[in-house]
This record gives sequence, C-alpha cells and structure tokens, in this order.
Amino acid sequence: MSMCTSADCKLCEFLSSKEDLETSFNRVETQKAKCKFGKNGVCCKLCSNGPCKITPKSPRGVCGADADTIVARNFLRAIAAGSACYLHVVETTATNLKNIGEGKGNLKIKSPETLDNLANIFEIVESDINQKAIKVADAVLKDLYKPRHEKMDLVKKLAYTPRFKKWEELNILPGGAKSEVFDAIVKTSTNLSSDPVDMLFNALNLGISTGIYGLVLTNLLNDVILGAPKIRQAKVGFRVIDEDYINIMTTGHQHSNIAHLQDRLIDKDVKKRAIEAGAKGFRLVGCTCVGQDLQLRGEHYTEVFSGHAGNNYTSEAVLATGGIDLIVSEFNCTIPGLEPVAEKFKVKMLCTDDVAKKKNADYIRFDMEKAEDLSETIISEALESYTNRRKTVKIDIPKDHGHDDVVTGVSEGSLKEFLGGNWNGLIDLIAKGKIKGIAGVVGCSNLTAKGHDVFTVELTKELIKRDILVLSAGCSSGGLENVGLMSPGAAELAGDNLKEVCKSLGIPPVLNFGPCLAIGRLEMVATELAETLGVDIPQLPLVLSAPQWLEEQALADAAFGLTLGLPLHVAISPFIDGSPVVTKVLEEDLVNITGGRLIVEEDVVKAADELEKIIETRRTQMNI
Amino acid sequence: MSMCTSADCKLCEFLSSKEDLETSFNRVETQKAKCKFGKNGVCCKLCSNGPCKITPKSPRGVCGADADTIVARNFLRAIAAGSACYLHVVETTATNLKNIGEGKGNLKIKSPETLDNLANIFEIVESDINQKAIKVADAVLKDLYKPRHEKMDLVKKLAYTPRFKKWEELNILPGGAKSEVFDAIVKTSTNLSSDPVDMLFNALNLGISTGIYGLVLTNLLNDVILGAPKIRQAKVGFRVIDEDYINIMTTGHQHSNIAHLQDRLIDKDVKKRAIEAGAKGFRLVGCTCVGQDLQLRGEHYTEVFSGHAGNNYTSEAVLATGGIDLIVSEFNCTIPGLEPVAEKFKVKMLCTDDVAKKKNADYIRFDMEKAEDLSETIISEALESYTNRRKTVKIDIPKDHGHDDVVTGVSEGSLKEFLGGNWNGLIDLIAKGKIKGIAGVVGCSNLTAKGHDVFTVELTKELIKRDILVLSAGCSSGGLENVGLMSPGAAELAGDNLKEVCKSLGIPPVLNFGPCLAIGRLEMVATELAETLGVDIPQLPLVLSAPQWLEEQALADAAFGLTLGLPLHVAISPFIDGSPVVTKVLEEDLVNITGGRLIVEEDVVKAADELEKIIETRRTQMNI
Repeated sequence: MSMCTSADCKLCEFLSSKEDLETSFNRVETQKAKCKFGKNGVCCKLCSNGPCKITPKSPRGVCGADADTIVARNFLRAIAAGSACYLHVVETTATNLKNIGEGKGNLKIKSPETLDNLANIFEIVESDINQKAIKVADAVLKDLYKPRHEKMDLVKKLAYTPRFKKWEELNILPGGAKSEVFDAIVKTSTNLSSDPVDMLFNALNLGISTGIYGLVLTNLLNDVILGAPKIRQAKVGFRVIDEDYINIMTTGHQHSNIAHLQDRLIDKDVKKRAIEAGAKGFRLVGCTCVGQDLQLRGEHYTEVFSGHAGNNYTSEAVLATGGIDLIVSEFNCTIPGLEPVAEKFKVKMLCTDDVAKKKNADYIRFDMEKAEDLSETIISEALESYTNRRKTVKIDIPKDHGHDDVVTGVSEGSLKEFLGGNWNGLIDLIAKGKIKGIAGVVGCSNLTAKGHDVFTVELTKELIKRDILVLSAGCSSGGLENVGLMSPGAAELAGDNLKEVCKSLGIPPVLNFGPCLAIGRLEMVATELAETLGVDIPQLPLVLSAPQWLEEQALADAAFGLTLGLPLHVAISPFIDGSPVVTKVLEEDLVNITGGRLIVEEDVVKAADELEKIIETRRTQMNI
Repeated sequence: MSMCTSADCKLCEFLSSKEDLETSFNRVETQKAKCKFGKNGVCCKLCSNGPCKITPKSPRGVCGADADTIVARNFLRAIAAGSACYLHVVETTATNLKNIGEGKGNLKIKSPETLDNLANIFEIVESDINQKAIKVADAVLKDLYKPRHEKMDLVKKLAYTPRFKKWEELNILPGGAKSEVFDAIVKTSTNLSSDPVDMLFNALNLGISTGIYGLVLTNLLNDVILGAPKIRQAKVGFRVIDEDYINIMTTGHQHSNIAHLQDRLIDKDVKKRAIEAGAKGFRLVGCTCVGQDLQLRGEHYTEVFSGHAGNNYTSEAVLATGGIDLIVSEFNCTIPGLEPVAEKFKVKMLCTDDVAKKKNADYIRFDMEKAEDLSETIISEALESYTNRRKTVKIDIPKDHGHDDVVTGVSEGSLKEFLGGNWNGLIDLIAKGKIKGIAGVVGCSNLTAKGHDVFTVELTKELIKRDILVLSAGCSSGGLENVGLMSPGAAELAGDNLKEVCKSLGIPPVLNFGPCLAIGRLEMVATELAETLGVDIPQLPLVLSAPQWLEEQALADAAFGLTLGLPLHVAISPFIDGSPVVTKVLEEDLVNITGGRLIVEEDVVKAADELEKIIETRRTQMNI
C-alpha cells in the first residue's frame, strides 16, 4: 500500500514492513482528493436547505449567509469545540484534586509547593493541605461554572497585567468559561450571528479561557497531584517497549485520571501477580499527550513508566509492535484507526471517560472515589490480555527506534531552576545574540503538512540553524524527540552561537515542555521574561508556530496565542481562505488589536524567514 | 429571477412582482447543486487532515473514522447545538423572571396562576409572589448549571412517570443541561468518541433536557411573565401591517426580552411621540416564532400587536412591503438574507442578544435592569427611522394576503378549558372514531421540501382529510395559518367525521399552538391524554411530523419526540443516510428502546399513509 511519509524514517520502515496493516499513513492516499469548499471554509451544513457552498456564481447560501459569515461561523465553532475539550480536561483535573483533598482515592498530594503557589495566587489562606487543595480546586470550578455575563475571578490573578488590561480594553475578558463555549455554539447556529468580526472577537475571548484555565491551570493542578517536572534524560521511541513486562499503553490528556493506577501498578502484590503470569511487572507505555505528561513528570515514576513511545499518529504503529497488552484511554488523541489495529493485535481497549468512548472499547467511568476499583479492573484486564494474547501475537519491536538521551522534564519551574533561579542568564544570552530569539514550535502532528512530523522537524531545523532556541509542547514534541532533536547531540545542527550555548549548558537546541497542555507553560515562561524585562509579551523576540496543527483544540490554542499578542504560524490554513474579512482580520488587522498575527505559510524556508524577520524586528525595537 | 415555490401563492405573486429583489427564494436556485457527501453526513471537516469523505473506495477518513462514526458525530453535534439554542432561551427566560421578581424592569407578573402551578410542581412553598418567582426561576437555573454527573431535579417533577422510568432504565437521564451540551461538543471532537450507538443515546439524553427545559419550561415561564394564552380569533399575513403606524418587526424566540417594550409602546407619552411624527402609534408586527408567541398571548396585547405576518422565510418579503420601520431581533430565525433587504428598504436592525448579532445591526444587550433604557432606544430609533424612510420608500402591502379569522391562543391550558375543563370529550371523539388520531405537524419551514411550506401544507391536508386532527407549533404554524388552514372554514377540507367535529365546536381542523417552543405544550397535551387514559405516550394514536425541519434546533426537538416514544416523520433526511448503524438505530431499533421511530419519507401521500397506519395500529392495540 502506498503511504505518506514521516520525518521519522525508522517509523516509515517499520510501517512499510507490515504489508497487511492499514494505518492512517495509508489513508492519506485514499483521502487525497480534498473538497476545495471545505478547505476554504465556505461549505455550510447547518440546515436542511443545505449543504450550501459559496462560489462566484452563488455568493450567498440559501439563507443569505455570505462567505465571511460562513467562514467565521465554522471557525468560531471549531474554536469553541477545541476550547470545550481543554476545559473538560481542567474540570476533570480540578475535580480530581478536590476529591483527593476530600480523601478519596487514598492519594497524597505530590507537590505541596505548587499547591502553595496556587493558593498564594488565588489569595487563599489555609494551613491544612487537604483543605487547601479543596479550596484551590473549588476556585477553579466556580469560575468555570459562572454564567457568561459574570467575569471569572482567576483571569486577573493569573494573567500578565499588561495583557489583562489589553483584554479588558478590547472587551474580550471571558465570563464563565463553560457558558462562553456554550453561547459560542449558540452563536454559530443557523440564522443566529452573521457578524464575522464579532465572531472573531468571540474566538479571542475563548482563547483566553482556553489558555488560562485549559492550559496554564491544568498543568499546575496536575503538578500538585502528580509532582512537578524535574529535568532529566529519558528513553523515547519504540525502544521503550519492553516485551518482558505487561504493557499498558496510555492515550489521552487527563494525567490525573491515572494517578492512582501509576502508584498501584508497582505495589508488591500487583507486581507479584504479573510475575506469576510470567512477566517482570507492569509498565505504562506513553503515547500521545498523556505520555508526554508522564515523561515530563517521569522523575517521580521511574519504575512504572517505561518511556514515551510516540505521538498521535505513531500510536497505530506502537500497537503493531505487538508489545502492548492493553490500551487505557481517557481522552483524545485516541484515533479511531487504533480500533482495527487493536483488534488485529488482540489488544483490549478500556475508556475511562465517555467523551472518548471508542467503538470497540469497554467503558468504565473514572471517579476518584472508585479509583481503586478501576485500577483493579485495569490490572485484571491487562493480566488476562497478556496471558491470552502473548501466545498468539508476534512481537516485533524495533529497538533501534528512538533515543536514550532525550532531555525532558522542562517546565517554567525546572528551566528557571536549571538557569540558576532567574531568567537573567537567558536574557543575557538573547541580548548578546547568542540566542537570537525563541520560537515555540507546538501543537499536533498531522499527516498532510508534508507528512507526519515533516514540517515540524524541517522548520525546527531551520530555526535552530538561525540560532533561534525552540521550545516545544504537544505531539510536536513527540516527533521532535523521536528524531533526536531533543537529545544534546542535536546541538550540532544549531547555528554557531546557539550551538555554543547548548554545548556549554549540556542541553539540546530544542527543549521539551511535554504535552500540548504545556503551551500554558510556555506562556508562563513568556510572561516571566516580559516581566523581568518590564515589557509586554508582543515586544519579546518570541514567535509561535503550530505548523502541523490537527484538531480544533489546536485552533483554541492558537486563539490563546493570538490574544497574547504573538505571531502564530501554521502550515495549513484553518479553513478560512474563503473569507476576505476573516483572513484580513487575522492576518493583518489583529497586529494592531492584540499584537498577534496569523501567518499561513506552507513553505518551510519561507516560514522560517518570516519568523526570523519578526524576531529581528523585535530585537531592533528592543535595541539589542 | 427564477425562484422556488411556496404553498402561499399570494406570497409568491408578491415576490415575483419585485423584480430587482433577491431573497432566499431565488437563492434556492443558485444553491441547487448539493454535495452528496454532505447530504449523507459522511463529510468530516474536524481536523487539518481533512476534509475527508467516505466513499466505497475510501471507507475511512485519514484518522480511521468510518461512516458510522462520522455521521453519528455530525448528528450529535447538530443536536447539541440545537439543544444549546433552546437552553439559551430558557436560561434567558428564567433570568428575566428572576429579575422581575427582584423588582427589575418594573414589570408585574401577568399569570400568577401559572406561577402557582409551577411552584406546586417544584414543591416550593412561598406566599410572596415575587419571592415565588425568584425561587421558581432559581430552581430552573440551578438545574441548568449542575455538573454533568449530577442529575437535574426538575425532570422527575415534570416528566410523565412512565417516561421518566423508561429514561432511567435506559440511563439517559440528563445531568446539568448546559454541561451535557458542553460534553456532547467535546465528545464529537476529533479523535474523541467513535461509538455511534453511544452518541445516539447521548442525543436522546439531550432530547430530554431540550424538551423539559428548553420547550416545556420556557413556555410556562413566559406565560408567568407575559400572560397565559387564551383562545381567540386573529388576523394573520401581510394584511396585519398597517402603514399608518410606526411598525417594529420582531424576530426571535425570547418573548420575555420584549415584555417591557410591549407595555411601553402603548404608554400615552410614547403614543404621543408617534402621533407628533405623523403616525397613529407604534405597532409590533410578528414574524418568526416570537411573533407566534405574541399571537398566542395576543389576548393580552390587542393594542400593541398588529398580528403575525409570517414565518422565517416570509420575513424578507415582510420587509419588502416597505411597511416595516425597525427590526428588533433577539434570537433566530433572523436569516442573514434580511440584511440586504433591510438595507434596500432602509430598515434599521437592532439586536438585543449578541448570539444573534447581525452584520449590519446595532447591538444593545437586553438586561431586565436596563429594560427601560433599551425600550427608549428602540422607540427613538423607530421614530427616527419612520421619519427618515417613509418619504423615500415605496409601501406596497398586499392587503389581500392572509386571513382575519385564524383561531389562535391554543395551549394545553386554554384547549382543556375550551373542552370543558378535562380531556374526556376529546378522548370520546377519538374513541368513537370521529377523530381518528392526532398528528403534531411541527417545526420549521424550509425551502427544499417541495418549496416554502409546501410539504407542511400538503401533508396537513392529507392528514385532516383522513380525520386526523393536526396540532401545529413552529414556523409550520405560520405557514398553515397564512394559507387558511387554521381558519374555521378549513373544516371543509377535513374528512367527514373531523369536519363534523370542527363544525360543531367552531374550530378549524388544524390547531395553532404557536412557536416551535410550544412543541413543549403538545407534550403536555400528550402527557395529560396518556394520564387520563392510564397508558404510556407511545400507546396513544398520536404521531409527529416535522416535515420541513430546517435548523439544528429542530433536530433537538426531534430527539425529544423520540425519547417520548413518538413516531417522527421528516421529509428531508437529517444527514444520516451514509451510516448503516445510525439509520438502523433511529429508523428500526429505537421502537424497541424508547418506542420512538424516525421516518424519512419525501413523498407526501406515502408519509400520510405511514402516519395513518401507525395511528390505526395504535387504535387497534387500544381496542378502539
């Protein structure tokens, strides 16, 4: 079967060797005829008079909606859905923290320091650690559940003040985050809003709640529950799968849902059951963003976590190694393509959140109060699966895939600590031109921007060559680490100045912040840099690229980036090209509104040129 | 320009006479090439690997999603959006009632009886009318804002017990309604749920909250605020527009948002300002569902309300009469096509809810606390518009359009009162075969099921000819009344038995319950009939048809109908034909689950045959 390519050659080789295996890589070919109306965002399927599409001869749908209305409506609805996904995650996380505080799940808080930090920010005075956890969680939940016309309390406490003022001035401060999403869905329904500009401002509003709650707070709440990241070196790629263990592959974004399982899998009695079944024990194999979260906090889980195997579109291949005995999924990006591969390789799937219910999976809702029961179910199912399937399924794990020396555990906190407890060293390096600027290369991987991880990897290489330090968060990290760009040796690929910095510090030129949620950590870094320098974020020599954005969630991330005033590059247009108003606002006008700007550029070198030019302009404006 | 047809011939004549006017009727022609993938629901635009479409040669999208997953996802997301729209309306209505109770807006409660009734159902003991209003409103709002995994309290209090038990058994009782919608949006995002059956059950869950809160409760809360419906005769059609008045056309679904305006427009000082400007006063001209709501409660507003002019797709023509001076819109169905027509006829638009912000409209948010200011703005704008535009715009109101004797004000309460305070008389007529059964012909109008109101009118004629009493709610009512089927003379079109009943009672064979929201009133009638007979709803000789459903809201209504166990006919498939699983579940299996069944039939006579057959089977099963 013909298949699309990947930046990860060993992955391609492996997939090519599995002749009777159909994966997403093959389906790129069968789905290559793309509808141009859909691509341009000018198709509308909202009502029974449709589908309508905008063409020069039919400039309005039956109802009268024009290209601007239709594109803006599709765009805002996508961002609302993406925002909903992140907010679902932060709601789960806050609920889990609250339940832990209430003694459910029998778990201890692993980072009291992060909890103290949050309590301080939230102005909560409380000495009991569990009560403090409950109050912190409640503050988040209370904001999420406010009506739309009541502003949330924590935005002001968490946002960088110049940004907060800008958002206030633009009237885009969000009310209750869930109600904001809800009303954006209403707004984008048939015969409701037709105003593209209003809808774009609404998208920015959703960007703020996505960023502050879905991203920043999810990370910090997870740190409280699971431990704060510590910088360390780790193994990545298929080599992390050890066939001597009973291997549970995790997919999703809700790390706290497996907090109990992680601890339980290495309890003596559980380990004994694995040994009795002929294995050395249980291991969690990381995949998608929850794998990145495990890797990020891996310092606390060296025994149970075998390492991060790969990102979203690597997951089918991970199953095809035969080394996985059970999939536990609690959210996306659990691609439907996993289902037939799981059947083929006799891997049972368990879903612990019904929003991510897969067709052939069992569903048991995660609830902290019943965490012990759920862990027991997972353990029994994994044991049973191991016992049954290992006799019949061929195991073929390419142990030469991946690396042993990926630098991981990078966060706003661990990086600052690594740099000596403040940002002055980094700022000095930037001021001196040793680091020209910083680029966040973030988001998903897709298969259509030149292939799996291809654009991400090529763009990153272009950027580091130009002495631009790259920070990554999301499936992009999974791609970058599997091809070696997050190993110290990658310094050789950097420009002379950046190479020197990397070598002296012993770091790679691409720093791994972990899951897409950690885009929130990049925001914290940006804020602290701006704060240290006494400037606003759009003045920093800092750019963003989500070259291979895939999901609606990535567009919600993008909206956050644009509210922060950052230039944001994407290699595939977010289905807006059919609207003159939407493209003009996002690609031109926005720079005078929030300072942000959408850059759609499908050529790697041109994209790198553009991003470098912005960094250079910013440097000039800062007189460095 | 070529244009689609309407059941309303005078409307067609009028539109044909306006040669340089483009309306939705013309755009049906320019949009007639339909995408078959969109029609079949097998197009997916959720991620940047797409758009993907399912064909025999490409049975899965890039991610692996098959036709069942894609169709179910699109279908559930549409229902979630439709549900969100109705829930937005009930939230606004409850908030308005609460504010009135708190003394804001200086409004009096117009139906203390309905309030008492609700307080009884809710088990609220409170003697002060304003406190009672606050407590009733709070009970609704509290339920709407619960988290998804906390069941709402009022469902059990409002639902018919056998239905409640069935829903409980099926595990489809909704948690907090807004969170249910929110999580359905999450569930239908990329790489989250892939399970079509789970998604269809989720759609049923949303149907319950849509029905009980969005429909039933919105009507009752509006009755509290604006007065309960009383049966009376009224004028409908373009003839209701009197050019001697300053005419404000209302569009939307949130009647309580104009509660203050209605009263204010006929205050002496305001009337005086109109007279000074050369008019006889101010009038509200009803259009879309809020017009139906005004008509339904018209007994209380004889002076200010001139009558219902027409439904959603009649609205462009209403503007083209030149007789409208201002549009006040608070929700859908305010079609974007109104914008260029409003510009052409110099009609200013004001939107009072940003979810319905039109491109060329001013937006002032409705807030009960500032109701007086908003009414003043509307009055000033209307005066200014009247003064400026009347000199320059030609007025051409076809006064022969419509009828003077439409029976309106029909509700669960007024109908029972009319029938002598109980349902025994109606049940007797059904038992004796004078009325063979009841059909709810409800929902929107679209332009594609044989033309504007064509299917609705033809089906209704077929049904009454077969002695089936038709109850209508929604834009369907607007169509049916404008062609005379809701006037007593329409009895001549009924079968001999039904004709006799109509003549003896002085009623038409098609009863007008008003807006689409009043589908909730039909549910109350069905429940009371079932209760009186001691049977469950699916046993009644009662069927539903939403032949010309248009919007996602109609699909949420449909989900409610299916949870009630009713057969539901539609003339246009809700974009599900591409999925074997989805069509089988909805069209076959569901009858053994809830008792409901989706019937897609695009032929009028065949649809009537099918609905009649069901009624006859039910009659046989009831031994009548």
